[in-house]
Amino acid sequence: MADWAPPLPPAAFEARAAALQARMGHDGIDALLLTTPADVFYVTGFLTRFWESPARPWFVLLPASGGPVAVIPAIGAPLMRRCHAEVIRTWPSPDPEDDGVSLLTETLAGLVSEGGRIGLPMGLETHLRAPLGTYHAVRDALAPRRFVDATATVQRVREIKSEPEVALIREACAIAGRAIDRVPDIAGPGTPLDAVFRAFQSALLEEGAEWVSYVAGGAGPEGYADVISPADARPLAPGDVLMLDTGAVRQGYFCDFDRNWSVGPPSDAVRRAQDALYAATEAALDQLRPGMTARDAHAILSETTRAHGATPCEGRLGHGLGITLTEWPSFTPRDDTPLRENMVLTLEPSAETVPGRILCHEENIVLRADGPELLSPRAPATLPELGT
Amino acid sequence: MADWAPPLPPAAFEARAAALQARMGHDGIDALLLTTPADVFYVTGFLTRFWESPARPWFVLLPASGGPVAVIPAIGAPLMRRCHAEVIRTWPSPDPEDDGVSLLTETLAGLVSEGGRIGLPMGLETHLRAPLGTYHAVRDALAPRRFVDATATVQRVREIKSEPEVALIREACAIAGRAIDRVPDIAGPGTPLDAVFRAFQSALLEEGAEWVSYVAGGAGPEGYADVISPADARPLAPGDVLMLDTGAVRQGYFCDFDRNWSVGPPSDAVRRAQDALYAATEAALDQLRPGMTARDAHAILSETTRAHGATPCEGRLGHGLGITLTEWPSFTPRDDTPLRENMVLTLEPSAETVPGRILCHEENIVLRADGPELLSPRAPATLPELGT
Repeated sequence: MADWAPPLPPAAFEARAAALQARMGHDGIDALLLTTPADVFYVTGFLTRFWESPARPWFVLLPASGGPVAVIPAIGAPLMRRCHAEVIRTWPSPDPEDDGVSLLTETLAGLVSEGGRIGLPMGLETHLRAPLGTYHAVRDALAPRRFVDATATVQRVREIKSEPEVALIREACAIAGRAIDRVPDIAGPGTPLDAVFRAFQSALLEEGAEWVSYVAGGAGPEGYADVISPADARPLAPGDVLMLDTGAVRQGYFCDFDRNWSVGPPSDAVRRAQDALYAATEAALDQLRPGMTARDAHAILSETTRAHGATPCEGRLGHGLGITLTEWPSFTPRDDTPLRENMVLTLEPSAETVPGRILCHEENIVLRADGPELLSPRAPATLPELGT
Repeated sequence: MADWAPPLPPAAFEARAAALQARMGHDGIDALLLTTPADVFYVTGFLTRFWESPARPWFVLLPASGGPVAVIPAIGAPLMRRCHAEVIRTWPSPDPEDDGVSLLTETLAGLVSEGGRIGLPMGLETHLRAPLGTYHAVRDALAPRRFVDATATVQRVREIKSEPEVALIREACAIAGRAIDRVPDIAGPGTPLDAVFRAFQSALLEEGAEWVSYVAGGAGPEGYADVISPADARPLAPGDVLMLDTGAVRQGYFCDFDRNWSVGPPSDAVRRAQDALYAATEAALDQLRPGMTARDAHAILSETTRAHGATPCEGRLGHGLGITLTEWPSFTPRDDTPLRENMVLTLEPSAETVPGRILCHEENIVLRADGPELLSPRAPATLPELGT
C-alpha cells in the first residue's frame, strides 16, 4: 500500500543537494536549516497536506556534504522513509518540555564545528515555520556557531526549474485549462459567486488536480474591487466581469493563472482594459529574455498597458512559480533580481477599468534562452462572454 | 459586489479584543504583534486563501486599549476595510529594500513606550509567519522595548469558543458528515485511492465547504501505515481498510474528524481495534470534564484502548480545533493544559492492528460543564463495509 513516492527520481534530489551544497560553499555556509513545506519538499520530496496543522515544527538539515538529515516529529517518519533523507531522527511531538530543541541542537552540533555558520532563510519572501522560541533556544545552545541568512543560497538554486519540474507545472496548467473550459457550464447570469468557486474547485479536482490550494477571483460591474476576498453569495448579473484565479496542484507543483469572462457584452472601459492587458502580455511574451531583471519585466508590462490607454495597477505584475503558489522574484520597480534561463514565471498585468475596479490577466511561462515558452493555454484576445 | 463580510458580527470582534487586552494586562504585555493567518483572522475577521502565497508578511497589532491596527501589504487593504481593524497602514509589498520593517517599527513605537513589552507568540504550536530578518530588524530598532512570549496570552483566549464559533464548527462537521455518507458511492473494490481522495473533496465542496484545506487518509490490508502520506493510485482491494480524514472549512472554521470503512468483511485484528477505539471514544464522551487536563484525556483514551485488548499508538490522541485544523492542547502524557468549558476538541484514539498498521478514530466535541457535546455525527460502532 505504501506506493506513493516523490514525483521525481532519486537522482533529481541528489542533484538538488549538490547544487545547494555548491552554493553553500560559495556563500560560506556549513549547513542549511530548512523549516518550510516548500524547502523541505524541495530537498527531500516530503509532500503532505499535514502542514495544515501548525502543531509541530519540522526541520531538514543539509550539511556541507552528504545527504539531507531530517529532524522531525515521529508521526512523519513513515512518509520521510519513502523520501530522500539520508538520516531521519524523530521526537514525540508536540512535547511541551522539549519540542525538538535538544534533538535539533545535538544534530546541528554534530554537523557544524564551533566556528561554523548555519544558514537559515531570513530574507524577503521567506518565513520561519517553527516557534521563534525554538530558534532562540537552538541558536543560544549552539553558540559560538553563527546563524546567517541563507535566502539567496536557497533561492538561486530553487528558482531554476529542471525539465521534469517544468513538465509538472505544465501539467498543472493543463488541468486548470480544462477546468476553465468548463466555466461556461458552471457560471452564468444568476449563479452566486460562491457556487461558482465551489464548482470550479470540483472541476479542477475532476480534471486531475490532487489539491486545490488556491482559488480566488471576483465579480462585479466593470471588474472587481480586489482579487483576494472570499466569494460572497451575490448572483452574477449582466455587465459583471467574472475572474477566476487558481493554484491547482499536481504532485506538489502549482499553476497560477487566471481567466476573465464578461456576463453579457463588456463595457467599453472593460474592453479597453482587456485589449491593453492582452497587449501587455503579448509584449512580455515577445520581449522577455534571460539577463533582464524583474524590474525590466515590470516595465514591459506596465508601459505596454499604459501605451494602450489603460492605467496599470500598483503592486507586482508577475512573480516566480513552482512548489509554492508564488515564488520570488517579484515584477516591481524595486526588484532587480536577474531573470535566468528556466525560471518559471507568471505574467500578471492588471489595470484599472473605472476608479476602484480592476481587471487582471495572468499567464505562466518558462523563460528559455530565446524567450518565454507558454505553460498556460493562452487566454483569448477577446473577453469571452457568459450567458449569451 | 463587496458583499463578503467576516462570519461574526462586529461585537464578537470587540469582545475578542477586550478578552485579549484583559489577558495582556494580566501578562504585562503592552501590545500584541500577530503574524499568522489564524491570529489575524481571530482579531480582525480577515479571511483569505491568499496566505497560500508566502511572498508577503502581514502584521496585526493589538494595543493595550483601542482596536486592532493592521500593518499590511497594500493588496490587502480593500479586504481589511471590510474587517475589524481600527487603523489600516499599508506598504507596497514585496519591497526588497524595506518590506514593512520601517512601517511596523514606526507603528509599534507609537503604541508602546520605551519601557514597554511587545508580546509575540513564540512557544509551542506557534510560528513566526514573517521573515526572521524582519523580526530582528524591528526588534533592534525598537530597543529598549522588549519582545516577550505571548503564547499563553493568545492561547488562553482563543481556546474558549463562543456559541457562534461552535455553531460554525458544527456546520463544518455536518458538511463533512454528508460527504462521508456519500463515500459508498465514491469508493469500492477497484477504486484507486487517489480517485477516492479527489471525489471526496468534490463531495465536501458540493455539500457546502468553501475550501477543503485538508484531506488525508490511507488504505491497506489490516489498516494503514500512516495518516499523512499523499494518496497513491493503488485500487482498493478486499480486505483493505479505507480511512478518510477531513478538515473542511466553513467561513474559516474547520472540522477535523475521520471515518473508516472495510472493503468486504474486516479481519479479526481490525475488528478488535475497531471495538477498542469505539470504546475509548465512548469512555471519553462519558468521562471528560472541565478541570481535567490534556494528559487526563490521553489517559482515558489510551487506557480504555488497552483495557479492550488493543495497543494504543504513540503520539497525541486528540487536540484543540477551531480556526486551524489543529489547535492546542495536545492529548499526550506530557501536556498538562487544563481543559475548560467551551473548548472544542478532537478525540482521536488510534491503535495498532498488526505490526506497522494502524486504525484511527476521530470525533469532534465541545466540552460543556457536564461533559462533551458531540459536534461530528458519531461514527458507527461497527465498521461499515464497502462493496458488499
